[in-house]
This record gives sequence, C-alpha cells and structure tokens, in this order.
Amino acid sequence: MNKSRLGPEALLFPTPAVLVGTVVDGRANFMTAAWCGIASSKPPAISVAIRGERHTLKGILAQAEFSINVPSAAMVAQVDFCGIYSGRKVDKSNLFELFEGELKHAPLVASCPVNLECRLRHTLDLGAHILVVGEVIQTHVSDTCLTDGKPDSAKIDPLVFSPGTGTYQRLGEIVGQAFSIGKKRPGGAQ
Amino acid sequence: MNKSRLGPEALLFPTPAVLVGTVVDGRANFMTAAWCGIASSKPPAISVAIRGERHTLKGILAQAEFSINVPSAAMVAQVDFCGIYSGRKVDKSNLFELFEGELKHAPLVASCPVNLECRLRHTLDLGAHILVVGEVIQTHVSDTCLTDGKPDSAKIDPLVFSPGTGTYQRLGEIVGQAFSIGKKRPGGAQ
Repeated sequence: MNKSRLGPEALLFPTPAVLVGTVVDGRANFMTAAWCGIASSKPPAISVAIRGERHTLKGILAQAEFSINVPSAAMVAQVDFCGIYSGRKVDKSNLFELFEGELKHAPLVASCPVNLECRLRHTLDLGAHILVVGEVIQTHVSDTCLTDGKPDSAKIDPLVFSPGTGTYQRLGEIVGQAFSIGKKRPGGAQ
Repeated sequence: MNKSRLGPEALLFPTPAVLVGTVVDGRANFMTAAWCGIASSKPPAISVAIRGERHTLKGILAQAEFSINVPSAAMVAQVDFCGIYSGRKVDKSNLFELFEGELKHAPLVASCPVNLECRLRHTLDLGAHILVVGEVIQTHVSDTCLTDGKPDSAKIDPLVFSPGTGTYQRLGEIVGQAFSIGKKRPGGAQ
C-alpha cells in the first residue's frame, strides 16, 4: 500500500463535534470543539483542547466548571455557528434552551441528547492549545435516547466532524459488536 | 425534553477506535483505544487514555514513542481482537503488515489509512487511566485515501466506537460543510 507523508499533523478519524458550555462574564456561552476525548474512567474525566486566546477558556479558568454537550445531527447549523463566532462578539446565551444541573457554571443544552457537567481538574499547556481536563460530576441523557437505560447511538444520532474535507457527518451502519467480533484470531498480515 | 441522570460517566459520541502501536520487550504490539483525541495543533499533539496496568503503557514509558493507527471499517475483527487480548498473553506482532517511518519504536500498520508517529511528551495520572500525550512527528496517509492531497473520510472509511451499545459503526451521510452551514445565525431556543 503506497503512503504519502504529510508532515506532522493533528489528524484523527472520527472526531466529535461537541458544544463546550461555560459562563463568561456572567453569561452562558458555547464553543464548538472537535478535539475532545475521554481521559479516564474512575473518576470519569474528559479532555478538550482549547486555544489559549479563546473566550471559553477564560470562563473555564475563572469558574473551574464547564459542560460538554453532545449535539444531534439535526443541530448542525447551530453547532457550526458556535464554531464560527466567538462569544466575545456574539451573544450565544439565548441560542439554546438550557436546563439546570448540579453545577452553577456548566450550562446544559436541552436539545443535546447527552450532557456532561464537569469540574476543572487539570490544564496542560501544549503550545497553541491548552488541554483542559475535567472530572465528570453528572451525566444527563435525553429519555428518548435510552434503550434499556443505556445511551443508544442510533437514537442520539451524534454529529461527526471529519477533518480534511471539513464536513459534518452522521453515523452509518453497525459493522460489529465490541468484545465479540474479534474473539477469534483474525488472519495474519496480508 | 425529559432527561435522566446517569451519575458521573465517561461518555462521548462519537469516539474513534484506533490501534495504539508500541514496542514492548522488543516486540511490536497493538492496543485498541476509543479514548483518544487531538490535544493541540502546534506542535500537533494527540492524547490517549491508557489503564495503568496495560502492556502498552509499559512500552510507551520505556521507549517514549508510540503510533496511532486509524483503521478502516473493514478491519473491525482485527481491531476488536487487539482490544480483547493483551500483548502480555498474545503475540500481535505478526497480525499486520508493518512499514517503516521515522521513529524506531512506533510500529505503523500498512492497512490502516492514517498513521501518526508520536513522541511521548506528557503523562497525566488521572486515577484509573494515565493520559498519554504525544507530539506527532510524522503523518502517513494511504494514497488511495487522499482527494486533492487531503485525507478524505469517505475513502478512509474509519471505524467508530459507540459506547452504551458497544458497537462499531461506519460513518454515514454528510449533513453540512464546516465554517459554512452555520454562517447565518440559526433560530433561537425552541
């Protein structure tokens, strides 16, 4: 298989497109982030990479709280809007219906099927971005997105961000069950 | 919209299913990870959460190098196999055709459309997991997965891991172009 070397790049497939919620200068604000990942299971923790000059980072550092809201594909225009315009210039506080959780400064978006309330635990200065690590304090899932009490990706219909083409996509067909389809050793190197 | 509180959970949609490549005790090894995210753009950096007792962590700490390999959906059985069995018990070094990059201890899987060679920069002990942060030294993309020199998710056909249901999925339809579909302010809270 022929390969091309692209040089050092921050490249991963798939990446999510989440709304990072904060309170900045007393107002709820939401930033779109694709550079977000789970960081630990116990205590549950999540990381998100945020540019140093971002309005959202100011709020997270001031309040030591934030939210991660997982939007559905139907919210694509709102998600992109929150990625294009800074809260420094645009008031995003009335863009969504919000609901109350446990933390005071982690605004939760009702139309997002999954919402995490996070308390700031670590920041790691990596150069262009600060890696923000939060402990998940509470998890909210829309009742319509649960199957037997568990979050169901088919009902959540999450938004995927694909770098390179810069497109938002939906999830597609299921190709296997984890911890099952690979139980038998597959064939060796082809 | 009615919501259920699930308690603190490490929950995100979508998550990737990547193969973390290392050399442990002189042998190439691959671990499947869904808890992986981009950490910075300059220098490009990527994070992956790994349990403290993992064979892979031993290799990363010893060599200070690792690879992130993005598999295609066709590789689902091999990916799941690498998630089920530890390199401590199973030799995975001949499971894939490998190719040479710049680093000596970041084994690269030829059949994976995207491969990152990483140098270890930080480890963050978060409890159950260590968050490993690596700087991307070189990026390899299969020529068949490039469109106008850029990685194309339709050709890469990456594997998505969906928590909750524990299923592997493919990507689906494109629903919008980033930095475009949200240029106009969408309607307010509904």
